[in-house]
Amino acid sequence: MEHPENDKAYKGLVVNAGIEPPSSVNPYLKNHPRRKKRSLSVADYVDGIVKGDVTILSRAVTLVESVLPEHQTVAQEVIEKCLPYAGNSVRIGISGVPGAGKSTSIDVFGLHVLGKYGGKLAVLAIDPSSERSKGSILGDKTRMEKLSVHPKSFIRPSPSAGSLGGVARKTRETIVLCEAAGFDKIFVETVGVGQSETAVHSMVDFFLLIQLAGTGDELQGIKRGIMEMADGIVINKADGDNLERAKLAASQFRNALHLFPASESGWTPQVLTYSGFYNLGVKEIWDMIYQYIAFVKENGYFEYRRNEQSKYWMYETINEYLRDNFYHNPHIEALLAEKEQQVLRGNLTSFVAAKNLLDTYFSDLKR
Amino acid sequence: MEHPENDKAYKGLVVNAGIEPPSSVNPYLKNHPRRKKRSLSVADYVDGIVKGDVTILSRAVTLVESVLPEHQTVAQEVIEKCLPYAGNSVRIGISGVPGAGKSTSIDVFGLHVLGKYGGKLAVLAIDPSSERSKGSILGDKTRMEKLSVHPKSFIRPSPSAGSLGGVARKTRETIVLCEAAGFDKIFVETVGVGQSETAVHSMVDFFLLIQLAGTGDELQGIKRGIMEMADGIVINKADGDNLERAKLAASQFRNALHLFPASESGWTPQVLTYSGFYNLGVKEIWDMIYQYIAFVKENGYFEYRRNEQSKYWMYETINEYLRDNFYHNPHIEALLAEKEQQVLRGNLTSFVAAKNLLDTYFSDLKR
Repeated sequence: MEHPENDKAYKGLVVNAGIEPPSSVNPYLKNHPRRKKRSLSVADYVDGIVKGDVTILSRAVTLVESVLPEHQTVAQEVIEKCLPYAGNSVRIGISGVPGAGKSTSIDVFGLHVLGKYGGKLAVLAIDPSSERSKGSILGDKTRMEKLSVHPKSFIRPSPSAGSLGGVARKTRETIVLCEAAGFDKIFVETVGVGQSETAVHSMVDFFLLIQLAGTGDELQGIKRGIMEMADGIVINKADGDNLERAKLAASQFRNALHLFPASESGWTPQVLTYSGFYNLGVKEIWDMIYQYIAFVKENGYFEYRRNEQSKYWMYETINEYLRDNFYHNPHIEALLAEKEQQVLRGNLTSFVAAKNLLDTYFSDLKR
Repeated sequence: MEHPENDKAYKGLVVNAGIEPPSSVNPYLKNHPRRKKRSLSVADYVDGIVKGDVTILSRAVTLVESVLPEHQTVAQEVIEKCLPYAGNSVRIGISGVPGAGKSTSIDVFGLHVLGKYGGKLAVLAIDPSSERSKGSILGDKTRMEKLSVHPKSFIRPSPSAGSLGGVARKTRETIVLCEAAGFDKIFVETVGVGQSETAVHSMVDFFLLIQLAGTGDELQGIKRGIMEMADGIVINKADGDNLERAKLAASQFRNALHLFPASESGWTPQVLTYSGFYNLGVKEIWDMIYQYIAFVKENGYFEYRRNEQSKYWMYETINEYLRDNFYHNPHIEALLAEKEQQVLRGNLTSFVAAKNLLDTYFSDLKR
C-alpha cells in the first residue's frame, strides 16, 4: 500500500468487507424473472440445505447475494443455523491470470478429486468486477464442460459486481451453506489481479497459483505479494513444444520461492508442471495438495488457520466499516479534498490535516 | 496481513500512525537532567533552524519527540513554519538485518557522499523497539566513528519506544526540521524486521536494502514484502574469501527481482556487491543511487512519490486513529473477547459479530 493508484486505496475502500448500503436489487433476480416461488421459512431453508437439497441451497445462496434488507435478515439467520453443520471440508483457492487456463484446469481437477476421493464438490468464485451480463468468471458454466453436468458438483458464479469486500463476504457465507449441504470439497476461483487473491487466501486451506511458462517478461504479470501467498504453484500447458519452457519456468519459480521466508505452516510451497488440456500431471498436483492437508492437520496449522481466518474477517469487517463511515460522512467529503491540497502545497503537515479531519468527524458524530 | 501473529495486528494497531495519548514523559528528558535552558519561542526555534543552528535543531527534535501536550503544540507550530523551507533534499532509506553491517556502511556511505557531493547529511532512524537504555540503533553514535565527528553531519537516534506509527511520525517530522536547517541529504536507518521498513519506505526517495551473502537458508531472513520495496539491493562483505559467495548471492537476487512486477517508477532495481569494512564498491552504489534520482526527477516520479507519501501519511493517520478509537472504547474492550470466542466456537458468523460490535460503538458515541 505504498503508492496506491487512487484515493480509494488510501481510504482503504478497495477492500470493503461487507455491510454496504442497499443500492440495487440483485441483478440475478431481476434478469431471470420466473414464476413466483413459494416463500420458504428459515427452518425450510435449513432443513433443505442440511438434507443436501441443491435447489434450496441455490435459493439460499441467492438470498445471501441479495442486497434487499429483508433477504439479508433471513439469509443471516439461515447461515447462523447452518454454522454447526459447516466446516467439514477442504477449501482450495485457485488463482491465475486470464489465459492461464483456469476453467479447463478446474474441470479436470474437479473430475479428478471426485473420482479419486468421492464426496461432493462446490465451485465458487470471487470476481469483484463481474457482471453477469458481461460474462463473469464461472458465469458461463459450459466453460467447465464435464464438471457442469456432474451429479456431485455445484457450480456458482461470482456474486455480481460490488465492492470486493461485499463480494468476498457473500462467497464466504456461501461456503458455509455449501458445507452444511454436505459439500466436502470447495474450490474458490479468482482472477489473478491482486486484491481478490488476498480475499480468497483468507477463506481457503490451500492456495494454488496457476502460471504459464513464458519469457522472463511475461512472468512479471504476477502481482505483488501473490507468489508469497501460494502454497503451491503449478505451471500449465506443460505439453508438446512447451514442455521444456514449462520446466524452466518451474525451476525459476523454485529459485524465487527459495528467497522467501519460510511459511508459517512449516510447509514448503511446491512447484509442479501439468497440462490441463491433455490431463497430464493432474494426479501429482492433488497428491501434493492432500499431502499438505494431512501435514497441516497433523501439526495443528489447519485448525489454527481457520480460526485466524474467522477472526480476520471479523476485524476486517470492522476496520473497513470504520473507514467507510468516515469517508462517506458529508462533512468529511466536503473537507477532504481541501485538506489534501493544503498538504500537497506544503501548507499543512499530513498529521495536522488528519487531526483537523478527525476532530470534524467526531464532533459531528456527537451532535 | 493474512495471518497476523497477534490481535494487535488484526486491529491494525501495529502501525499506529501518530496522535497517541500522552502516556509518559519522554525518557530522554527524564534520563538526562540538565540545567534549565532558556525557553525558546516558536519564532526562536524557526529562526535558529533556518540559520542552520544545530543546537536549536536538536532541541526542536526533542520537542517533536516529547509526549507532553504543551511540547507537541509548540513542535507542530515549528514544523508548520519550517515546511516552506523543507523538501530540498535526497532522502535515502537504509535497511538490513542485524549483522548486515549497517553502521559501518552508513559511516562510509556518509563520508563518500559528503566528500563527493558536498552539502550536509542528517542520519535518522526508526526502531519502534528502541529504548535508549538498551542501546537502540544509532543510540551509540560511536558505531559511526568518522561520521559522528564530521562537521557536516547530524546524527539522531530513533525516537524512543512507542508505537511504530508514533515513532515514524516523529522521524518524518524530524526530516522536515533537518531539511529546513539545510541538510540536503537524509539517511533513515531501520532494522530489517518488516513493518518498520514500510514506514521508512513511505518517507524516502530511494530504499536501499543491505544484504549478506549466505546459504539459501540464510537468505530467508528477509521478511515478506521487503525485497519488493527495494530500489537497490547491495550485498555487503564482498571481500576476501567471501567475494565469490557475494557475487553468487547478487546473481540470485537479480533472478528473483526479475520475477517481480516492474516498479512504478520505471526504474529497474539494481543489485551490487561491496565491502563496507574495506570501502570497496561504495562509489558504484552512490553512482547508482544518484542515477536513480536523476532518472525519477526527469520522468516526474520523484515529485509524484513525495506527494503520494504526504497523502499516505494523512490517510494512514486517519485510518489508524479510527481503529485506535474503536478498540480502546471501554464497551468494545469489554465485549470484544466474548464476540471473538463466539466466532471461534462457531456460534456467530464473523460478519454478525462485527455488526454487533459496530452497533455498540456508534450508539455509544452518540450518547
